[in-house]
Amino acid sequence: MSQSTTNSRIVLASRPQGEPTPDNFRLEQAPIPEPAQGQVLLRTVFLSLDPYMRGRMSDAPSYAPPVQIGELMVGGTVGRVLSSKHPDYREGDWVLSYSGWQQYALSDGTGLTNLGQTPAAPSYALGVLGMPGFTAYMGLLDIGQPKAGETLVVAAATGPVGATVGQIGKLKGCRVVGVAGGEEKCRYAVEELGFDACLDHRAPDVAEQLAKACPAGIDVYFENVGGKVFDAVLPLLNTGARVPVCGLVSQYNATELPAGPDRLPLLMGTLLKKRIRMQGFIIFDDYGHRFGEFWQDMSRWVGDGSIKYREEMIDGLEQAPAALIGLLKGENFGKLVIRVGADD
Amino acid sequence: MSQSTTNSRIVLASRPQGEPTPDNFRLEQAPIPEPAQGQVLLRTVFLSLDPYMRGRMSDAPSYAPPVQIGELMVGGTVGRVLSSKHPDYREGDWVLSYSGWQQYALSDGTGLTNLGQTPAAPSYALGVLGMPGFTAYMGLLDIGQPKAGETLVVAAATGPVGATVGQIGKLKGCRVVGVAGGEEKCRYAVEELGFDACLDHRAPDVAEQLAKACPAGIDVYFENVGGKVFDAVLPLLNTGARVPVCGLVSQYNATELPAGPDRLPLLMGTLLKKRIRMQGFIIFDDYGHRFGEFWQDMSRWVGDGSIKYREEMIDGLEQAPAALIGLLKGENFGKLVIRVGADD
Repeated sequence: MSQSTTNSRIVLASRPQGEPTPDNFRLEQAPIPEPAQGQVLLRTVFLSLDPYMRGRMSDAPSYAPPVQIGELMVGGTVGRVLSSKHPDYREGDWVLSYSGWQQYALSDGTGLTNLGQTPAAPSYALGVLGMPGFTAYMGLLDIGQPKAGETLVVAAATGPVGATVGQIGKLKGCRVVGVAGGEEKCRYAVEELGFDACLDHRAPDVAEQLAKACPAGIDVYFENVGGKVFDAVLPLLNTGARVPVCGLVSQYNATELPAGPDRLPLLMGTLLKKRIRMQGFIIFDDYGHRFGEFWQDMSRWVGDGSIKYREEMIDGLEQAPAALIGLLKGENFGKLVIRVGADD
Repeated sequence: MSQSTTNSRIVLASRPQGEPTPDNFRLEQAPIPEPAQGQVLLRTVFLSLDPYMRGRMSDAPSYAPPVQIGELMVGGTVGRVLSSKHPDYREGDWVLSYSGWQQYALSDGTGLTNLGQTPAAPSYALGVLGMPGFTAYMGLLDIGQPKAGETLVVAAATGPVGATVGQIGKLKGCRVVGVAGGEEKCRYAVEELGFDACLDHRAPDVAEQLAKACPAGIDVYFENVGGKVFDAVLPLLNTGARVPVCGLVSQYNATELPAGPDRLPLLMGTLLKKRIRMQGFIIFDDYGHRFGEFWQDMSRWVGDGSIKYREEMIDGLEQAPAALIGLLKGENFGKLVIRVGADD
């Protein structure tokens, strides 16, 4: 790929009502910036697309401030140092950064992780060895506390979080039941990832199927979607169950609460009667200090094949809006990454 | 009080629909049983009335099996050994037992706690030094994890659990805001128990009052009532808040879910965005092994006046149904105890 002379970037053009549409985004051209003393110029190679981005497009209160209209869409990136006036980085270094949806970015080193000159699989730092893998690892092990012989259910079973949760569950000796969208993903979860079962959430009788697949109830439900999957899970939760909540992708496009009856008292009553722990977490806020522990275990597991990882790579920054819209509908298969530029 | 020649007992006559009524109970007479070898005959002196009893009157699934129609109402009791054929008990010993709503009971020692011949305040074993106190202690300290300077909110603030929660919170340096039914209870919480504020949940603007009383938000909400108090608490919960759930007395008489919209997704979204831990617990199931730790701390606190305790004592087993019905409406003030027999 020849080097651009301008910096293509995608900004938030307008806030979505419900599902985002392509006209919520705008592709712009800007000059490639020059690094000042103490700065590096980064060229983005990979951009991560993740469900949380939907939240940043809204101005409703959330755990992070919204992207402002006309401003750059945020996102985790892996790129290379194009030129450096910073003592810790040299040309050609791979770095994990948070450059957002653009081809070039300046950094003073804040929040950068240097991956060195020849990392084995640099894009993995956006997935199984990065935020999604870390989310799976801490949420399952610290809040979920799975024990051998217990039943673990995880939705979005072939996504970067769910696939990792399920495989760690198998390493810990659990019966693992996944829920995913479509036959192909379900087959992959069982045949490739080693899940004991995987159900298609599009099936009209998914609640009955789940009850059959969990004859001893559910001890850990790793919540990353909400909605109908949770409705099917709730009556199956065992006494003493743990429910880490890392995402509710099924709700992100909702503009109002669903119709009644109001099941808030039902949920609280279930937590009480069954002595259930339900806990939300935001990975770097709650567990940032334990990244080293994760990195060590996960590098080993990925290295020796205990944990498998699948990426869906799409070429071209201009494809990012459509890819994110598809992600929120569950159309991707594996970790969604945009290849923004060449890797050499 | 002269000794009876028969055993008065109250059984469940029928299951309540919504609020219990007097005809759900029936007073019966039975012969006083004779202890066999290895058994003791107990004479009930005090019967504890507690909100959980409403749950046992229903046949809906709960954390404990329901009382069957025609069977004895269950309940914690303190009584004396009338005659003993058990090596560990002698006549006149005070014991904590689970004899239910009756004057006499046999026991083979299972579940009995010997309080000795001259306990200082035997009925306290049903309250601040027993199940309600233990519930307050473990729920607040283990799940709630209050830190000095944080804001703790507790409902049913003058009940045996709530009053103890709030006072432990003060010992730990929290700002403590209670919610109770009526001016008199609120005054007691502030003036006698040392709460920083206490709001009347009957006030139409209780949500606004709560927001004003918690200018830095809520870090720990000790949930023992549910309903409108929780609705007022939910938007005030801080990031990282903890919500131990030990009871939902406002829901116990409900026969169906409230009208919509369905706020289950709202609750889960709040848990996620604010990284909140919400956890139900049943005190002896979850924490039975830590009773000694509680007993030591609480005996000291009650002994030195750090924790105050109020009982509402009602004479006569036949008063128990009306007293329980009143309890579920919040009519009692302090720990409700029925004096079933003489204490000599």
